[in-house]
Amino acid sequence: MRDLKKRTLGKEKAVEDGMRVVTEYLNLNTEGDGTLVDITAQLHKILSKTKMKNGTLTVFVVGSTAAITTFEYEPGMIKDIRDLWEKLVPSGQRYAHDDTWGDANGFSHLRAALQGSSLVIPFADNKLILGTWQQVVLAEFDNRPRERRIVLQFMGK
Amino acid sequence: MRDLKKRTLGKEKAVEDGMRVVTEYLNLNTEGDGTLVDITAQLHKILSKTKMKNGTLTVFVVGSTAAITTFEYEPGMIKDIRDLWEKLVPSGQRYAHDDTWGDANGFSHLRAALQGSSLVIPFADNKLILGTWQQVVLAEFDNRPRERRIVLQFMGK
Amino acid sequence: MRDLKKRTLGKEKAVEDGMRVVTEYLNLNTEGDGTLVDITAQLHKILSKTKMKNGTLTVFVVGSTAAITTFEYEPGMIKDIRDLWEKLVPSGQRYAHDDTWGDANGFSHLRAALQGSSLVIPFADNKLILGTWQQVVLAEFDNRPRERRIVLQFMGK
Repeated sequence: MRDLKKRTLGKEKAVEDGMRVVTEYLNLNTEGDGTLVDITAQLHKILSKTKMKNGTLTVFVVGSTAAITTFEYEPGMIKDIRDLWEKLVPSGQRYAHDDTWGDANGFSHLRAALQGSSLVIPFADNKLILGTWQQVVLAEFDNRPRERRIVLQFMGK
Repeated sequence: MRDLKKRTLGKEKAVEDGMRVVTEYLNLNTEGDGTLVDITAQLHKILSKTKMKNGTLTVFVVGSTAAITTFEYEPGMIKDIRDLWEKLVPSGQRYAHDDTWGDANGFSHLRAALQGSSLVIPFADNKLILGTWQQVVLAEFDNRPRERRIVLQFMGK
Repeated sequence: MRDLKKRTLGKEKAVEDGMRVVTEYLNLNTEGDGTLVDITAQLHKILSKTKMKNGTLTVFVVGSTAAITTFEYEPGMIKDIRDLWEKLVPSGQRYAHDDTWGDANGFSHLRAALQGSSLVIPFADNKLILGTWQQVVLAEFDNRPRERRIVLQFMGK
């Protein structure tokens, strides 16, 4: 009996130590074009709650006019990022997409497609492996306030 | 004996509920530069067949002259995406890479490097978590028809 | 006893076949702006050591002035990539970020934010699924020599 019990306990431990998939959602309200939201603190907080030690966090923004990136979140850089997008994909220009819906946010779609909707960050010892000046940022490219849903999927042990 | 049997069943269940890695391939023929292929429906179909509930799908295009992105797949936006690439990395220009091989697709390589070859999408309840107007698109940047291989790797439970 | 032993062996096998997370680090010294380092051979070597068959490798560079991309690593393309970045985000210009710290690497931060800090590559049969002319490259955008830490996280079986 003792042997059996021991093995049962061993098995429970194995299950407890196994791989897990935890899906969480972060809902944010943005003010529209140019809003850059630092979500790093929330990611750390939710990772801490999962108690997972090692694995990856996939950050994915739902929708076609927003993106996820990383940069040093300080006022100078925030201005530079906005200026860069205005230069690469100007908002004052007419795009073919605008004629499809008449909503004048063609530039928002183009910026989002180029920047990308997902980012994968490894974590170890329950901490995201990020640089000190490397924040995870939601880039709102749309030209009107939006309610954003960001998927946070943790996979690991 | 009954106890042993019960435990054996329990073990089978544990295996059935465990993490899986499923690797599939999507082979496509493209017409060359500017071909933008919406592959969303195929991704949903293959995910459905895996019967996996929660996890991530990694979409990765093999090769250095194509990329994966997401955008609202409609004729206006397709035109805008092509125009944007023509502006950022013009096809009519001579690149140093063209002198290496003499194949004149330096612009294709540059566009692919900037856009990126992979995308990770979370899924829950056997559905990819995408926006209604957020399609997954293969961007063919090469200047000649190509046979493309896209890796679809599902990881989850 | 034989039965128990048999089951014990079966259990060990199950554990051996289970999902694993392996976190490795690649430390590199770069010469500063424009350094493009092909890290493909190291990735293959470390994957080989893990003995994992199927799964994903997440490549993530720590810091906000470097990025990860893929391209055909040959002298012509290396020159083209540098020229493209100089055109999209010129290094000779003054950025708001430069006024924050006085370190004149605003352009490095912008390039890194646009290119992206992570890349996910699927592997099967212990081989990364990459094209023959598709190398994994660390792009150093900073304007001074840096010691770079790249996280390699393997997840799979």
